[in-house]
Amino acid sequence: MHFCLMYQTLKDLCEVFAPSGDESRMKDFLLDYISKNQSEWVVQPEIIAGDEWHDNVILVFGEPRTAIFAHIDSIGFTVRYENQLVPIGGPDVQSGYFLRGEDSKGEILCRLEMNKEGNLFYHFGRAIDRGTNLVFESNFRETDEYVQSCYLDNRLGVLNALKVAETLENGIIVFSTREEHGGGAVPQVAKFIYEKYGVRQALISDITWVTDGVHHGKGVAISMRDRGLPRRTWLNRILKYATDSGIAYQLEIEGSGSSDARELQESDYPFDWCFIGAPEDHVHSPEEKVFKFDFESMINMYQYLMKKL
Amino acid sequence: MHFCLMYQTLKDLCEVFAPSGDESRMKDFLLDYISKNQSEWVVQPEIIAGDEWHDNVILVFGEPRTAIFAHIDSIGFTVRYENQLVPIGGPDVQSGYFLRGEDSKGEILCRLEMNKEGNLFYHFGRAIDRGTNLVFESNFRETDEYVQSCYLDNRLGVLNALKVAETLENGIIVFSTREEHGGGAVPQVAKFIYEKYGVRQALISDITWVTDGVHHGKGVAISMRDRGLPRRTWLNRILKYATDSGIAYQLEIEGSGSSDARELQESDYPFDWCFIGAPEDHVHSPEEKVFKFDFESMINMYQYLMKKL
Amino acid sequence: MHFCLMYQTLKDLCEVFAPSGDESRMKDFLLDYISKNQSEWVVQPEIIAGDEWHDNVILVFGEPRTAIFAHIDSIGFTVRYENQLVPIGGPDVQSGYFLRGEDSKGEILCRLEMNKEGNLFYHFGRAIDRGTNLVFESNFRETDEYVQSCYLDNRLGVLNALKVAETLENGIIVFSTREEHGGGAVPQVAKFIYEKYGVRQALISDITWVTDGVHHGKGVAISMRDRGLPRRTWLNRILKYATDSGIAYQLEIEGSGSSDARELQESDYPFDWCFIGAPEDHVHSPEEKVFKFDFESMINMYQYLMKKL
Repeated sequence: MHFCLMYQTLKDLCEVFAPSGDESRMKDFLLDYISKNQSEWVVQPEIIAGDEWHDNVILVFGEPRTAIFAHIDSIGFTVRYENQLVPIGGPDVQSGYFLRGEDSKGEILCRLEMNKEGNLFYHFGRAIDRGTNLVFESNFRETDEYVQSCYLDNRLGVLNALKVAETLENGIIVFSTREEHGGGAVPQVAKFIYEKYGVRQALISDITWVTDGVHHGKGVAISMRDRGLPRRTWLNRILKYATDSGIAYQLEIEGSGSSDARELQESDYPFDWCFIGAPEDHVHSPEEKVFKFDFESMINMYQYLMKKL
Repeated sequence: MHFCLMYQTLKDLCEVFAPSGDESRMKDFLLDYISKNQSEWVVQPEIIAGDEWHDNVILVFGEPRTAIFAHIDSIGFTVRYENQLVPIGGPDVQSGYFLRGEDSKGEILCRLEMNKEGNLFYHFGRAIDRGTNLVFESNFRETDEYVQSCYLDNRLGVLNALKVAETLENGIIVFSTREEHGGGAVPQVAKFIYEKYGVRQALISDITWVTDGVHHGKGVAISMRDRGLPRRTWLNRILKYATDSGIAYQLEIEGSGSSDARELQESDYPFDWCFIGAPEDHVHSPEEKVFKFDFESMINMYQYLMKKL
Repeated sequence: MHFCLMYQTLKDLCEVFAPSGDESRMKDFLLDYISKNQSEWVVQPEIIAGDEWHDNVILVFGEPRTAIFAHIDSIGFTVRYENQLVPIGGPDVQSGYFLRGEDSKGEILCRLEMNKEGNLFYHFGRAIDRGTNLVFESNFRETDEYVQSCYLDNRLGVLNALKVAETLENGIIVFSTREEHGGGAVPQVAKFIYEKYGVRQALISDITWVTDGVHHGKGVAISMRDRGLPRRTWLNRILKYATDSGIAYQLEIEGSGSSDARELQESDYPFDWCFIGAPEDHVHSPEEKVFKFDFESMINMYQYLMKKL
């Protein structure tokens, strides 16, 4: 996949409707993408999917030692009663954002409204069926320097995994669901990859935040902690490899935020994990923005670490 | 069980002392009830209970595909120091509510008091032993239209399961503990019914809230979401069956609240789940009120779905 | 171990650097201690440790029926950007507390500062590496009546387990990690000890709070509840034994606070558990204070209960 094609794939990914709990279209997109592209991959993975796995997809390459987790779901909204909305995950909310979806009466493109009390509503020419899920309307933009769109979190994490898949010899890639809304999908996967393959190392392929310590254009962020704490002795191994690699990276330290790693940590299995991802600003809004240099550092770092770990 | 008998059973259930973590009396009540009644059931279930299961009781009928979860515990209070009380779960608190229990000195019927800071106390003629659990004094009322009592949540859910048991051919009924106070009992059960029977479909037999979108007398509520999100493709199957059934139901959409479903979702197993229950008002107070039409729709809907799913 | 030696061991334990997620030094300390002392124990335990167990250590004595859980981690701080700090767990924070650690440039002894907004900083003569963990500087004090130091919570719980180990014939001792910061280590251990040994009884060897109902010098506290609720029928067994023992104890009832017990309760296994520990004041500060009488009651109570349960 050339880089120009790569960002075309990103645009396609950003347009897939997949709020938490409702990821069947993304599962189908990925299975189709893998089917069309895997013949050019160095190793043909075993593909684990199906109703028993809900909308999760697992790829197993060679003799795996480490798993990449890339969540495929997004934040969004559910239509409640009257014209009320209830959030899925923690979306940024500003009156005027465009939302799209579909109900029994057809396709929907409506506007988000928030009143002074913080309650959420849709503005549309007709009533929308109770329980309909809505997501941000995609508005993908690309320059030489950066990409900007809703849902770069975590379609870039998914794209990273797909890029790493091209040359991966030994490893597991997990396309996981429900991350944005409290989780619940990772425990089944953790049990499976530990019990079947003995895999207990994980890299979290997800997007993080630009802050006062993590900046655009400085390389991929390696998170030393967020709300969760990776085991320090294992983290030190990652940092040594990262330095040896010569690939641009920056260290992140936060007291809040979590990821699929939380469920690995809380599982019955002794997972070590580290969140490694490009930083974005305008988090969980339609204006998420990530610099290409940081994302390409992310791909390089994953390719390097998946060989070393 | 005739309907008049049914509401007598409800009254009995509402009087059983079973705050979260202290459900042994309800376990005994249920085992006794099942022992006396199961000869009239269409299928004799396997009964799984005992110290290894704490106060949970599991009934297995035929070749199960779907499990009903009905929690048997209630909210309540624990006596702290002096005349202070600490809540069990999230009870409604108003000065004057009657509370009952028993300690080393005998039976207790006391009054709840809340001061301006929201601290809770009991008012009684003597000191109550430290650590004594108290529940609302039962005050069961029945009219042609509705029932009203403390603990309709979830004695109606339990009663629903007992009614469904009468004609159930294939299925599992779980009488679960600890739901009102953070859970912790469902994971063991989830592991067991998945590993032993391959069951990964669950209906949550519990009571929900009257809101601006869910009303008395409109039928059982099928929850499209609360804090948790049932998998949408599976939810759509339920809704199709519900519509086909011709049984009165209403759709619920909320952003908060949870149930035994949370622990199924977070388990190591791929459970699909849906909360289906009659709505009440005066939630978690001694005045919980449910319309008989809604509860009887609940029984009918469970009977129908347990055949179809 | 004589009592004077015992409190020397406590001083050593309090000086071990082991914030949550970074407990390798404590694991090494314990393995070394056990290696040097176990020849004088009544029963030689099987020692379970190693990378598959992260920094947890498990000792199995004879034919175990009950496990003691003593968490080895402490609260602390992580260096963020500039001179900012992020807490590990819930430390007490007051400007002027001494913190120590080590980074690539050498050893660190700095001061904690908190501004009016509650943000945390370090004050030191040079910049500290991003991601460096810091803990309270140890300042151990001992009188005839009491001990005072940072990290009595939970080095006293660890010491209690080491003292009980001396005469333990049948039982498991778990030195667990990560308790102060959201947990995540206990599920693997719970699965192991239940599946391999059938053990599903647990005593939580941890330190609790002096309150309006739990006082210094009144004996070990047996917690009837905190945020979690031990199963009442099992709790009643403990209380009966405790009374029979003649050992000084006091009953604790709280609505908040939790321990390793939370993860046992939420596990896939039917654990019964009870928190039993001496009370301290100045919780999570460098001034934690525990009366020797209460701690020695704790040791006696554990020795007694491990035989009876």
